[in-house]
Formats: sequence, structure tokens, C-alpha cells
Amino acid sequence: MKFHVVASDGFARAGEMVLSHGVVHTPVFMPVGTQATVKTLSPQELLEAKAEIILSNAYHLYLRPGIDLIRAAGGIHRFMGWEKPVLTDSGGFQVFSLAKLRKITDEGARFQSHIDGSYHFLTPERVMEIESAIGADIVMAFDQCVAADASYAEVFDALKRTTLWAKRSKEAFEKVGQSYQTLFGIVQGGIFEDLRRLSVEEIVGVGFEGYAIGGLSVGETKQDMYRMLNVLNSVLPFDKPRYLMGVGVPEDILYGIELGVDMFDCVFPTRAARNALVFTHDGRLNLRNKALEYDFRPIDEECDCYACKNFTRAYIRHLHRSGEILGLRLASIHNVTFLIRLAQRAREAILEGNFAEFKRTFLSRYQQGAFLHMMEGEVSSGK
Amino acid sequence: MKFHVVASDGFARAGEMVLSHGVVHTPVFMPVGTQATVKTLSPQELLEAKAEIILSNAYHLYLRPGIDLIRAAGGIHRFMGWEKPVLTDSGGFQVFSLAKLRKITDEGARFQSHIDGSYHFLTPERVMEIESAIGADIVMAFDQCVAADASYAEVFDALKRTTLWAKRSKEAFEKVGQSYQTLFGIVQGGIFEDLRRLSVEEIVGVGFEGYAIGGLSVGETKQDMYRMLNVLNSVLPFDKPRYLMGVGVPEDILYGIELGVDMFDCVFPTRAARNALVFTHDGRLNLRNKALEYDFRPIDEECDCYACKNFTRAYIRHLHRSGEILGLRLASIHNVTFLIRLAQRAREAILEGNFAEFKRTFLSRYQQGAFLHMMEGEVSSGK
Repeated sequence: MKFHVVASDGFARAGEMVLSHGVVHTPVFMPVGTQATVKTLSPQELLEAKAEIILSNAYHLYLRPGIDLIRAAGGIHRFMGWEKPVLTDSGGFQVFSLAKLRKITDEGARFQSHIDGSYHFLTPERVMEIESAIGADIVMAFDQCVAADASYAEVFDALKRTTLWAKRSKEAFEKVGQSYQTLFGIVQGGIFEDLRRLSVEEIVGVGFEGYAIGGLSVGETKQDMYRMLNVLNSVLPFDKPRYLMGVGVPEDILYGIELGVDMFDCVFPTRAARNALVFTHDGRLNLRNKALEYDFRPIDEECDCYACKNFTRAYIRHLHRSGEILGLRLASIHNVTFLIRLAQRAREAILEGNFAEFKRTFLSRYQQGAFLHMMEGEVSSGK
Repeated sequence: MKFHVVASDGFARAGEMVLSHGVVHTPVFMPVGTQATVKTLSPQELLEAKAEIILSNAYHLYLRPGIDLIRAAGGIHRFMGWEKPVLTDSGGFQVFSLAKLRKITDEGARFQSHIDGSYHFLTPERVMEIESAIGADIVMAFDQCVAADASYAEVFDALKRTTLWAKRSKEAFEKVGQSYQTLFGIVQGGIFEDLRRLSVEEIVGVGFEGYAIGGLSVGETKQDMYRMLNVLNSVLPFDKPRYLMGVGVPEDILYGIELGVDMFDCVFPTRAARNALVFTHDGRLNLRNKALEYDFRPIDEECDCYACKNFTRAYIRHLHRSGEILGLRLASIHNVTFLIRLAQRAREAILEGNFAEFKRTFLSRYQQGAFLHMMEGEVSSGK
């Protein structure tokens, strides 16, 4: 992998990442395809949304369909029919958030599958084997996540273990990783500034091609998240890509970019879409809202996605109310496109040296609109 | 509407139907978009499947979202973003199969909505208003369906009422129908030859631009269905399109074509797809079958649909097992494409004068394959 910062504007950076399956222009939003599919979307639709890289998940693919099948299929790109870059998360977060009866020791994580209750034991070495078989362009080291309300001592413990696992991940990756793959480390440290600094020091000390920020967007306040991003921005190496894991709403993406983040991923845009919640330049909109019954405008008049170019709010509302899958699809296409475009437009603004103005203008309208939608919702809920 | 039979081969006919939104080449399979969407598919995908006409349903659209909205949207084509021809069924079958507490009199049908239990009363006149507002190219007269095991007397009663309603539908359509719309009549008569003959005599006596065969594919035996088609073929006017309602498996489509039918529709291909059941030239295949776990072939090697050109059985199986919507989509795209192509290939065979050979070859392989799939399923279910 080659990465370089093409331009910066304040702390915001426009970068270019050359991976074996294609070039990724940063800042970038990466749609999430947990089970080797971005929920409701086809690879063709992801191309049309101009996705340059998507994310998948070692934990999920290991449990189902299993890595033997993905290896036999020729890797995840061929398995799912997606020729552009893929990043796989290592599963540290899923062990924390999904698995049952987990027991974490320095050796690894023992847990029960959330699907069938079967027992599993993942170590950094085993995770590197799994990610090698999956064959993503970027693979993540195995890390330990803790809850947003974890104590200082718990966060410290997880941080030290994450460092230990980062070293073992790197050593194992050097043996089993495929030559075209790139390994990223993950920084932990919760919402404690000194622990974030310590984690960066240790993980950068191990040495990776890119650095992910784990343990944020897990329930902490926005203020705490931004405070941590500010600290991290000052200590992460400038010349490596920075990836803020699990962030996927417009305001957080823009704050992240402002504080030097290059990559984002989140299930929120597709999950929200399946609940009829869509982004617009004027804030979030609930497509089930009665006020949209006769609204023959697109979801967002400035959006160029398939949903906005061809269908009205009234029609998509009908689909959602009728339980029709096309409704989930159109909302998902829109939300994914919206975040991809947001990062692309942020990049253009950085290249033009006016990111601060872009962010201010976007958020001013977005937050004002959110307020108006809320008021409309209140009125219409009385009908 | 203009229709003419371009060529015939035995009783099989190749026709051309010119409607206001486009030309339909018959024999044709019409995908069903009950709620103004063909389940899981986008209009773009229907175009790629080369659908020339789709079906929607007055009963469903009247109940939800309501015809005021569809009228305000500019009709169903604009509402759902589909520019090619549409046919709306009148709702006679849905009143029979879905509505609750229905009471049928000569005046009309009183029933409770299957959605919210609200009370409704539909008459031929009201249905014509509804179908005019929906704005399909072809609209169906209001008819009364009865169950496959109805007695001779019950079938006779429904037949006479269907004739009465056909007359009133036609009179009402002449007042409220839009100038570009075409009205088809529906023949009833159950599985009684003399009643089928009587119904044709009466409905043709009223006079329509096309004739649908109702009350078949409702649970009767295949033998009874084919027997009725044979009778109908001998008495329906040659120069008008003939539409066999609710038929949508390959063998019935081919038998129907052989007996002079031009148009088919059915929810089966999309409903089966959502249950992982797909058509192939070698019979039906259940995509959840364990035997397909490492099967890296497409669903059908001879199919040119998006699913078959880009994805393996192994991947689509994974999607179905994981509850992923893309799995439902790919199976639906395939099944709809498969039936559309089957009708198109039948048309080519008719034009070349070798329909009988085409049918024999197709069914021989299809039925042999079905047997083999069944054996595979038995073996794999023991794993």
C-alpha cells in the first residue's frame, strides 16, 4: 500500500491510498458489508454510489459462511463480486458487542457464537489466518474493546492487551498475510487523554501502515469523542492513514475530517435506511412521516443517487408503509451515496482550501433543517 | 390498443400488442407488482430483465396508498417510475382470496380490508373509477371468483354475476376510462366445460379488446386446467389477446402457449425466490440446499440475468442463510428473467415453426433435472 497526503487545510487532509484493488481517495466513507454484502445493495449499486472501498468483518465471516468457503471461492472480492478494495475488521469489536459468555485473557478471546452458541477461541494469530484467507486489501490487527463507561483501570488493561495483541498480530501477519495485503493497528484508550497518548505511543511503536481509532462511537458523549480526536490528531503520524471506526453520521464525519481523520465506516446509514430514516441536506427525515404523503419531491433535491433521480418521497413512503423491500433499498442507496458524497465534497473543499467554510455551511443548513423536520414531525404526529 | 397475431404454429400464437406505453410481444410473462412494486426489484432491473409489461392490482392500490395519491402522482407509471405498459387486475380475485367477511350480491362486493379491517364496497362502476385513476394501459373488468372446489351451482352463479358485472364494467369504462386505456373481460366457469363455453359466449357477447381466463390456477388439478384451456382455445376469438391469470411456472406457461394463450402473470416466481427457490433449465433448485455450499456455478449457466452473470450459487446460498436481502433480490431477478425469457424463446420458436419441438426439449430437460435435484436434496438432507 502507498499513502500520501495530497493537500491539507488546517488539520483536514486530502489523501490518496493505492491498494491492490484500486485507488482510494480520502477522506472516504466506507459502506459496511458485514456478511459479505452491504445490506440491501448490490455491488453494481455500490459502484454507482461511487464507493471506492467497502468494509467487511472477520468475526462474522469466520462464523458464517466460514473461511474455508471464502478461501475456496478465491477470496472475498470474488466471493461477493466486488472488484474494488475491501477492509476487514478483525472482530475485536464484535467479540465485545455480539458474542456471548466471552472470556478475555492475554492469550485470546473465548466466546460463544451469537448465531448458534458454538464455542470459539480467537487469538491474534488465528485472526491473522482468518483475515489472510478472506483476502481483504486492508486487514485490522486484533484488539480488545471495552464499554464507553469502563473504568480507567479496565481501559488501561484493554489498552495493554491491545498492544500485546498488536505485536502478535504483526508477527503473525508477516508469516501468513498475503503479499498484497496491508495491516493496520488499532489505538484504544477510551475517553482518557493520557491513555490515548500511551496507546498511540505503543501501537505506533509496533509500527503499522495505518492507524485506526477504536473504542470511540461506542456510547460516549460527542464532546468526549471530539476531545479524544483532538488529542489523537496531535500524536498520530502525519504520513499514515487514520481511520475512525464506527463513525457514520454527517456531523461526526465532518468533525473527524477537521481533526485529521481520513477514513470512516458505520452501519448506521444502512440500518437507519431500513428504518425509513434518511439524510438530507436539511437534516434527517423519517420517510414514514404523514407530512410526506403527497410530497412528490425526491428525498434530496441535490442528490444524484438512483433513488433521488427516479422516485418521490410519496412513493418511497408508500413502499416503507407497505413493507416493500424496494423501500429499504432506495433509502439505503440514498444514505450510502449521501455519506460517500459528503466525504468527496469535503475532499474537494480541502483541495480548494475552504474546508472550514464547507463544514460551516453544511452543518448550519443540516442542523437548521433537522430542527424544522422535528417540528413537522410533531405537527404531523398529531394528525 | 392494437393487437394482431403475427404467426401461429399449431394453436400457439406469436402476437404484437401496441399499447400507449409501448409494444408488447406475445406470448409474454408479466411480473406482478401488486403494491406498485415488483417485490424486491427496481424498475431498472425489470427493464434489464426485458419486461415489456407488468401487472398491478386495483384492490391493493385502492386500499393502500389509495387512489387519490396515485391520481395526484399522475398515475401509476409516474408513481412507481415505470414507463412501459401496466395492466391492473380489478380485484375480483383479491376480494375472494384476501378480504374478510365478504358479502357478494349482484350489486357488488362488501368486505373488510385485509390490512386494517375497514369496511369497503366495490361495484363494477367503482372499480372502473379506481382503475381509471390508477391509469394502467390495460384494465380488467370486475369479476367474481369462486374456489376450485365450488359446486356447479356456485360456479354458475358466479359466472352469471361476472357477466352482469362485465356489462356494467364496460358501460362504466366507456364513461370514466381514460382514452388511452383498454378494457379486458374475464371468463369464469370453473372446471366445467359447458360453463366455460357459456361464459365465453356471454363475455364475448359483451365485447372486449381482450379476454382473460379467470378461475384457473386456483387449486384445481393440472389435468383440469389443461382440459379447460383446450375448450377455451376452441371458442375464444382468434384475433384478440388471451390472458391466463395467475399462471407462472414454466410447464404451465408452455402448455398455455400450446393452447393459444398469449399473456401470463403470477406472483410465484418472486414469492418462490424469496423462499430461495429458483428455476433452472434442469428444474427447480432450492438455494439453501447444503449440496450447493461449494457450488461456484451460477444459478443457471445459460441465463444472462445480473444474478447469473455475477454471482455463484455458493454466494447466493450464503446470502439466503444469512437473511440478507441481496439474496432475495438475486433470486427474484433470476426467476423473473427466466420466465420472461421462456416466453420470448417460445415466441421465437413459434416464428420459426418449431414450438412443439421447443416445448418438448425444454420440458424433457426441466423435468429430468427436477428429478435429479430432488434426489440431491434427499442425499444432502441426510448430512
